[in-house]
Amino acid sequence: MTYCVGLCLENGIVFMSDTRTNSGVDNISTFRKMHTWEKPGERAITILSAGNLATTQSVVSLLDERSKTHAERSPDILSAPTMFQVATLVGQTLREVIAANAAGGMVADNGIFNATLLVGGQVGDGQQRLFMIYPEGNFIEASEDTPFFQIGETKYGRPIILRAYDATMSVEEAIKLLLVSFDSTIKANLSVSPPLDVHVYEKDSLKLGRVFRIDGDDPYFQDISAGWGVALRDAFRQLPAFTMPKDA
Amino acid sequence: MTYCVGLCLENGIVFMSDTRTNSGVDNISTFRKMHTWEKPGERAITILSAGNLATTQSVVSLLDERSKTHAERSPDILSAPTMFQVATLVGQTLREVIAANAAGGMVADNGIFNATLLVGGQVGDGQQRLFMIYPEGNFIEASEDTPFFQIGETKYGRPIILRAYDATMSVEEAIKLLLVSFDSTIKANLSVSPPLDVHVYEKDSLKLGRVFRIDGDDPYFQDISAGWGVALRDAFRQLPAFTMPKDA
Repeated sequence: MTYCVGLCLENGIVFMSDTRTNSGVDNISTFRKMHTWEKPGERAITILSAGNLATTQSVVSLLDERSKTHAERSPDILSAPTMFQVATLVGQTLREVIAANAAGGMVADNGIFNATLLVGGQVGDGQQRLFMIYPEGNFIEASEDTPFFQIGETKYGRPIILRAYDATMSVEEAIKLLLVSFDSTIKANLSVSPPLDVHVYEKDSLKLGRVFRIDGDDPYFQDISAGWGVALRDAFRQLPAFTMPKDA
Repeated sequence: MTYCVGLCLENGIVFMSDTRTNSGVDNISTFRKMHTWEKPGERAITILSAGNLATTQSVVSLLDERSKTHAERSPDILSAPTMFQVATLVGQTLREVIAANAAGGMVADNGIFNATLLVGGQVGDGQQRLFMIYPEGNFIEASEDTPFFQIGETKYGRPIILRAYDATMSVEEAIKLLLVSFDSTIKANLSVSPPLDVHVYEKDSLKLGRVFRIDGDDPYFQDISAGWGVALRDAFRQLPAFTMPKDA
């Protein structure tokens, strides 16, 4: 499994991804699921990936290679003129890789070669934008109503984001929120694990922001993990007590 | 979908189930997923069900009918001498119903006729016990290490149970805990919905305990639902703030 989140704020986009990949529980490894591209002053793009690792690595390699060769007339990730076209390009590349591996070139339902991607960033005069890209190559965009996307093991960590997210929160608060969400997921699903990769894209900066990694033994992450358990129990205790109905 | 939980306490077992069934999002209904049997002074048994409604209703009807006819020499749910044998019997009945409907009589992986059941209660001199029964008819039992089972949409509501459960908690606290867990699930998954059925089995009582229903507009449930959002945000705010690493 995997857990990745892209979260839009008024002042930027925060990306976070875990690093565990597994093929069965007896074959686990650590791989980066966050990939970034930039042309400072012109664009910054981040991709988070969930799904078949061979597929996602292949997509990233193709996007990389094609951005360096500029051999064809088709746009690449460093030249596509808008975020929408970047998302289209990434979607096409994803579809192409899955089809190349899948039997008969078909993108199969629940196919083992499938992957889902989050693509976010900003290009030129455009707004910062965040997309979720499906194995079929099509995609949806985050909006005010749905300002964040999760991929992979999304459920355990969803309630806290739904409850505590606020578009005006600071980047630091957003990272704290995501760490709580990741901690709940890591506690419940063996196949999601630190270290966690973080990229904080600052709105209108048109370059990569802070990119860093949070290890499982990071003191702050440990504080959050232990503190959240205590805080949850306290919050629970403060709720009004249940009294049995008299007629039951 | 469905969400049901059986939670073992030192003093009893608390059962809670939602009532929504759906076949697509445009065809929803309310059905009881909690079924109880008792011979006061001798046994009390509760079954919670998730999965294909035709299957689970058929299982319950068969268990019911057979407990009334006593036609064969095989034990029924009101005569099986131990909870282990009750679980075995329920498992066999479940497997029988699925096989009767499935193509070729095979219990299929992810078959559309599948169902999963929780069976808990107490018989005679035995201990109170709780089992999770798989579509294949086999089952596992709750223990000190794993004192509760969830079936259906289990993920959204799991973190809070993991964090706040304590075997020595009172029945009222357990109900409060389950309401928080159900509320998180209901908020995230359209196909889980109140009213919620509750049965509180009191250890060694050997009869049904309080059985009641909590509606979606129940004032206490509304308090919990609203209060939990506030409590979560407060708990989140109290966690230490994140500071950006200097070298990032």
